[in-house]
Order: sequence, then structure tokens, then C-alpha cells
Amino acid sequence: MYSRGVNTSERLIESTRELLWERGYVGTSPKAILERSGAGQGSMYHHFKGKPDLALAAIRRTAEEMRATAEGVLGGPGTPYERIEAYLRRERDVLRGCPVGRLTMDPDVVADDELRAPVDETLDWLRERIAGIVEEGREQGQFASSLDGEEIAAAIVATVQGGYVLARAAGSPAPFDAGVRGLLSLLASATPSA
Amino acid sequence: MYSRGVNTSERLIESTRELLWERGYVGTSPKAILERSGAGQGSMYHHFKGKPDLALAAIRRTAEEMRATAEGVLGGPGTPYERIEAYLRRERDVLRGCPVGRLTMDPDVVADDELRAPVDETLDWLRERIAGIVEEGREQGQFASSLDGEEIAAAIVATVQGGYVLARAAGSPAPFDAGVRGLLSLLASATPSA
Repeated sequence: MYSRGVNTSERLIESTRELLWERGYVGTSPKAILERSGAGQGSMYHHFKGKPDLALAAIRRTAEEMRATAEGVLGGPGTPYERIEAYLRRERDVLRGCPVGRLTMDPDVVADDELRAPVDETLDWLRERIAGIVEEGREQGQFASSLDGEEIAAAIVATVQGGYVLARAAGSPAPFDAGVRGLLSLLASATPSA
Repeated sequence: MYSRGVNTSERLIESTRELLWERGYVGTSPKAILERSGAGQGSMYHHFKGKPDLALAAIRRTAEEMRATAEGVLGGPGTPYERIEAYLRRERDVLRGCPVGRLTMDPDVVADDELRAPVDETLDWLRERIAGIVEEGREQGQFASSLDGEEIAAAIVATVQGGYVLARAAGSPAPFDAGVRGLLSLLASATPSA
């Protein structure tokens, strides 16, 4: 529930974001959105065409936030290895999983090009951003020239996304942390002297 | 729909397995199970106590199959690196995702210790199995002694599970394949000479 100071459209979007993260698109009913936001059915349909339209606004905002958070560490100070390490080690609410990645397990999101677009664009942007940093590291002689930036970036993003899967299965962040340490130990040994 | 030769309990389990893979636990209604299996409501409640009981039988069978498939390559011929490579490169229906891993995004599965148990046990077994192979590779001098078997195993399983997320986001198996190639290039360079 949100205070009355926040406008209705905003409350609807924020409630939908929370529900999508917790229960996914298929598991989020318009009724649950109304209950959590405290909005009335009329005002929901005044601001949004329906559940897909409201979900799109919610997914877009979540995607933008994820991108800004990632850029905060990837665009920060340090060598390419250090920036990748900062991305992998940044504090996360591991057991909640990724609010963007989890949507890929939602059949109704994956089947809808409009809903899938912000998910695809965000993960694609993330891979490209990291690929650029790996290439930078290669040029600076920090990483072996045999490494392919796009492939390493895909492995990095996949380790994070799959780390959430392992952590949620185990009911503990430990396997996420282990996977990150494993990947970092491999990256640290992939130096040009190798 | 299954032929009449298959018994009802079997049809219910197989239909539930398919639906859990496609739509998850939250998205699978008893009605959808009855429709797909062609079974009547009475026979469903004759064989199973309800949706959780039927889902548990379905999840257990899917978990057993995943374990047998993984053991088929991990316990096969070849060096430790080759067996890990065979596991990572084995043919998969990438865009369907992992029928076991996807259940971790289901809030009702994660919140239920009984339903979560086969998911946890299977992914845990997989990590332990691969960790043993990495240790074997270290003892044989194929992998650098600085590598930690359990951490590398977590990174390997996470890359596969996260690879599905990237592929489903992109609507293409390409990012899954890229992540696997990236991880293999890192593993191949993590030799004792490094």
C-alpha cells in the first residue's frame, strides 16, 4: 500500500513491478494489482488499457533501473577486470532473483513481442556493454587475445542469471556466490601470459 | 492427448510435466491438466491428492530424467575437460529452457519445501558431480591447481541455466551458445601452465 501523496498511475506501476517480480506475469491478476495499489478498477482502466499495457510500463521501468544500476559499476573507476568484478560482486537480493531475467520464464511475456522487447534490449545492452569492457582489457593486455568479448560477456551475464536459479533452488545465496567466484578465478587466470 | 493404451495416472503425470515446463506451476490449473490428459476430474483425485501431489510426481520424474541425461555425458569417455565440454555442448531444446531450473522462478514451488526438494537435490547433485570432475582434472594436471572444484562447477551450471534466460529473452539460441563457448575458452586457458 502506498501513501495517498503518490498518484494513482504511479501506485499502479509500482505495485505491478513488485507483483511481476514476486509472481511473474502469468501469476499476477488485475485483482491482485488493484488490491496492492489500493486503486479502483475504474482508475486502472482510466490510466492503462489493461494488464498488458500496465505490465509494459512496469517492465520498462524495471529494465531502465537495472540498466542504470549496471552502468553504475560497469562505467565506474578501475581496470576492465575490476569493473567486471564490481559488476559480479555488487550487492544483490539474490534470493529474489532478477526482476528482468525472471520474465523470460513467463510464457505470456516471451510470446508477446512488445512485452519481451524491454527484456531483450536490456540483457542485450548488458552483454554488449561487458563485451566492450572485455575488448578494452584485451587491448590493454589484461586479458588473453584468444578471448572473444561477446562470448565472455555472454558467460558473465549467464553466470549471474543462472546463479539466481541455483540460489533459489537451494534457498541460499551460497551457490550464486560460488559461481561468481568460480568465474572470476577463470577470468583472473585468462591473462596474456597464459 | 495420449492414446488409451497408456494408463490414466501416467497420462496425468506426463501432461503435468509438459504444462509445468511450458507454463510453470502457478500457470498450470487442474483444469488444464484434465484437458491435456483427457482424464476426468474423478480419476485425477482417485490417483492424486490434488495439484501439489500430482506436480510432485511430475517434478520428481523430470528431475530423474535430467539427472540421467547429465550422467550420460558426465560419466562418458574422455578427459575431465572433454566430459565438461560434452555436458555444455550437448544438444538442448534451448528456447524451451530447463524443465527443472525454470521451477525456481515459481513462487509456489520455492515456498513449498516438498516441491522445491527435487529441484534443489538435482541441481545440487549436478554441481557436486561436475566439481568431482574438475578435481579429477586438477589431480591429472589438466586444470590449474588454483581452481576450486565447487566454484567452477557452480559457474558451469549457472552458465547453462542463465544461458536459457538469455536465449529466451533474445528469442534465439545464439546467446546460450555464445556463453558456452566463452566459458569453455576460459576453462581451456585455465591450465597449470597458466
